[in-house]
Amino acid sequence: MVRARRDAGRRLSAHPLLDELRAALPAGGAVLDSATSTERYRHDQAAWAEAGVPLAVVRPSTPEQVRDVVVSCRRHGVPVVPRGAGSGLAGGANAVDGGVVVSTERLLGIAVDPVERLAVVGPGVLNADLRATAAEHGLWYAPDPASAAISSIGGNVATNAGGLCCVKYGVTRDHVLAVQLVTGAGDLVRLGRRTAKGVAGLDLLGAVVGSEGTLGVVTEVTVRLRPARPPERTVAGFFGSLVDAGEAVAAVARAGVVPSALELMDSHCLRAVDAWKRTGLADEADTVLLARLDAPGDAGEAEAATVEACFAAAGATWAGRSSDEAEAEALFDARRLVWPAVDRLGPLLTEDVCVPVGVLPRMLERVQAVAREHRLTIATLAHVGDGNLHPLVVVPRERDGEARAAAAFEQIMDDALVLGGTITGEHGVGRLKREGLVRELDATVLDLQRRVKAAFDPDGIMNPGVMWR
Amino acid sequence: MVRARRDAGRRLSAHPLLDELRAALPAGGAVLDSATSTERYRHDQAAWAEAGVPLAVVRPSTPEQVRDVVVSCRRHGVPVVPRGAGSGLAGGANAVDGGVVVSTERLLGIAVDPVERLAVVGPGVLNADLRATAAEHGLWYAPDPASAAISSIGGNVATNAGGLCCVKYGVTRDHVLAVQLVTGAGDLVRLGRRTAKGVAGLDLLGAVVGSEGTLGVVTEVTVRLRPARPPERTVAGFFGSLVDAGEAVAAVARAGVVPSALELMDSHCLRAVDAWKRTGLADEADTVLLARLDAPGDAGEAEAATVEACFAAAGATWAGRSSDEAEAEALFDARRLVWPAVDRLGPLLTEDVCVPVGVLPRMLERVQAVAREHRLTIATLAHVGDGNLHPLVVVPRERDGEARAAAAFEQIMDDALVLGGTITGEHGVGRLKREGLVRELDATVLDLQRRVKAAFDPDGIMNPGVMWR
Repeated sequence: MVRARRDAGRRLSAHPLLDELRAALPAGGAVLDSATSTERYRHDQAAWAEAGVPLAVVRPSTPEQVRDVVVSCRRHGVPVVPRGAGSGLAGGANAVDGGVVVSTERLLGIAVDPVERLAVVGPGVLNADLRATAAEHGLWYAPDPASAAISSIGGNVATNAGGLCCVKYGVTRDHVLAVQLVTGAGDLVRLGRRTAKGVAGLDLLGAVVGSEGTLGVVTEVTVRLRPARPPERTVAGFFGSLVDAGEAVAAVARAGVVPSALELMDSHCLRAVDAWKRTGLADEADTVLLARLDAPGDAGEAEAATVEACFAAAGATWAGRSSDEAEAEALFDARRLVWPAVDRLGPLLTEDVCVPVGVLPRMLERVQAVAREHRLTIATLAHVGDGNLHPLVVVPRERDGEARAAAAFEQIMDDALVLGGTITGEHGVGRLKREGLVRELDATVLDLQRRVKAAFDPDGIMNPGVMWR
Repeated sequence: MVRARRDAGRRLSAHPLLDELRAALPAGGAVLDSATSTERYRHDQAAWAEAGVPLAVVRPSTPEQVRDVVVSCRRHGVPVVPRGAGSGLAGGANAVDGGVVVSTERLLGIAVDPVERLAVVGPGVLNADLRATAAEHGLWYAPDPASAAISSIGGNVATNAGGLCCVKYGVTRDHVLAVQLVTGAGDLVRLGRRTAKGVAGLDLLGAVVGSEGTLGVVTEVTVRLRPARPPERTVAGFFGSLVDAGEAVAAVARAGVVPSALELMDSHCLRAVDAWKRTGLADEADTVLLARLDAPGDAGEAEAATVEACFAAAGATWAGRSSDEAEAEALFDARRLVWPAVDRLGPLLTEDVCVPVGVLPRMLERVQAVAREHRLTIATLAHVGDGNLHPLVVVPRERDGEARAAAAFEQIMDDALVLGGTITGEHGVGRLKREGLVRELDATVLDLQRRVKAAFDPDGIMNPGVMWR
């Protein structure tokens, strides 16, 4: 199909749907259909996830235009792929051959209501822009995926994005009050509410958040905001082994402290950063833990002292805390360097398993065993406070490198399942983990999910091939 | 139907389903079918909601027994009504004629996992018992409906129960990690997860929480626990008018303080308490606000001082705060007395509308106007921090009393909708607010909800007549 269309040049542009799309949308690049112009809409950031060649990419400016597009696609039986900023890591926004990619990049606008502490946001708005606008009102949008600067709110809703502070504040779903969406049936509907509470009718909002574009196209998001926080304190700990670091995490939990972030970097992460930036970190530690605490006033100080004591008692070779915000940020710099540092070693397959926090040390050991078994470098970053690991599988530039990396990727999912975990904590199933999903969920539950999908999308035009085969 | 069965005495007991139920369940009162023994399972606490006479009440002891019951009922086309502790206020657990009430009272057990900070709980466990057990582990189950001592976790899940502290900590849905349930199709499934995060597949858990028994029977609930809190501080304010109290609430919000409870009692509440307990409250205030603050350490002290200052600045005739926990509890005693005090005035219709907090003063005025128009006493208690009002409509003991109270009940819902609110903040639609639901939601959304219900319950046997007509 890919090849056929390319060979045919612009001939397939005669698809009658294209005329309808052009009629439904304003002039000025709202319909893209040349191979050149659609190329950058074919992929998200997932290595290897299949990506087709779309019939067209559309960039509507209003919810009604999105509805008209979906209605037309449904009439023609053409698949619809919703797309945010394309920063996904599971192929959930990848084009399908002959389908229409609906980019939400022109659905912008942020309306903050400081009295109700909410914002009504276009799905194309970047997470960081929402956070910045909220801050102007003394408010805070909590979900902070590492991709905040480049990922859109619509994409965050599609994947139910997590982040660093969700160990204390919850994930995207916990901050979405309402969505407006165009269902696969072509209906423009509102789900959720603007009030702080509300139980009128079945809650379908939760099913939309994290649905990876399989139910409809989200055209507006109402999010809950919180009052701005006091500055965070940071505590860092250097450990001689993963086991010691795991013990430190357990000690923090036992002490009843809930950090606003708790991150782990293993020795492979540290070595990659050293190799790039000569920080010398790997000489000082095998494993690093970074905690943030945001309790106000003396309670924050007490929390920081408790965490530092927990780190020390678990055998940290060094533990210390920031005295100000600049110093705290500096401690987190190494964490920010990990992904680009490891990315220098070769193409990456980014894992995203999540396990009960009590078995996290065992899961970290399993990842190391998988790396040995398949002769791979796997550097693990973890949101350790929630048991969410991101083993970064470096794909060797060798003949069987891809096969070994793929085998490791699958094995890590299986190990997480054995330990009572899930194949994906925050990145989604997309096109990369459909096999894993079948291993995680009962056939009965998968059937139930497919029936609920059909309630939204009776003809199955929404993002086919994502989540379920 | 009611009458037919009574006339027929035990003859209808020959229904073949009864034999199947007796075969599926253990001896010892697991199947009740006499009019006497089923009587106390016919109603919840909602005045006037219709209630039928069930064919039988069953009290299974295991999830598998629940499944067998539902499978049998489905085969015979007999309606199933799930029932928790019967403390609901919307008729959601009321029996239907010829149906089977499935009581979860024997599905007990609380297993706390302190490392993962979660508990696996039988739906029949009372909220207060879960809270007490969690406390033994230094943990806290946040959702605190006023009915905590008498309502079950299964019922809390069915209605997505709120409470006092949800202004800061969220409602039941925010604390449920997973459920096991028997769907209307007769499948025993698990939805959700045990891990802190997880996005594998469509999230159907959110649809189950708050579904009022229309999708299935919940047989196990996994809830999130938090570390125990520091003691709360309480600030009370007496105001000369609702307007001043409303201004005080807005001032607290503007100050960026999120109280762990913020409650309002209007003059009718105060007079009812006075008439019963001679507290003299109504002489001192027209409206009382009670705030709780649970920030730790000096931050909690600062929050309490800020709230007290906000109350004073808004014109409080008196404002003061507790110096210890016993004093704080004493300040909340009056609130606890409101419901029984107003209940002495006559039968009550308990409203539950929720509006944006910014229009709460206007909503309070509308309630007073409705009371005047229909010559009724309506005493309003409000979880004012979330905009959730409980106007208690006292039904006059007069010929047209019920009609006037019912008209007021409907009018309050309409007024809430006009102000951008919802007909139910935390009690549910049940059998009392089905007409209101149609006024609140688009027909398209209601259709979508019905299709999702059908995905769980293809034959429509689950709690017919609840939520949708």
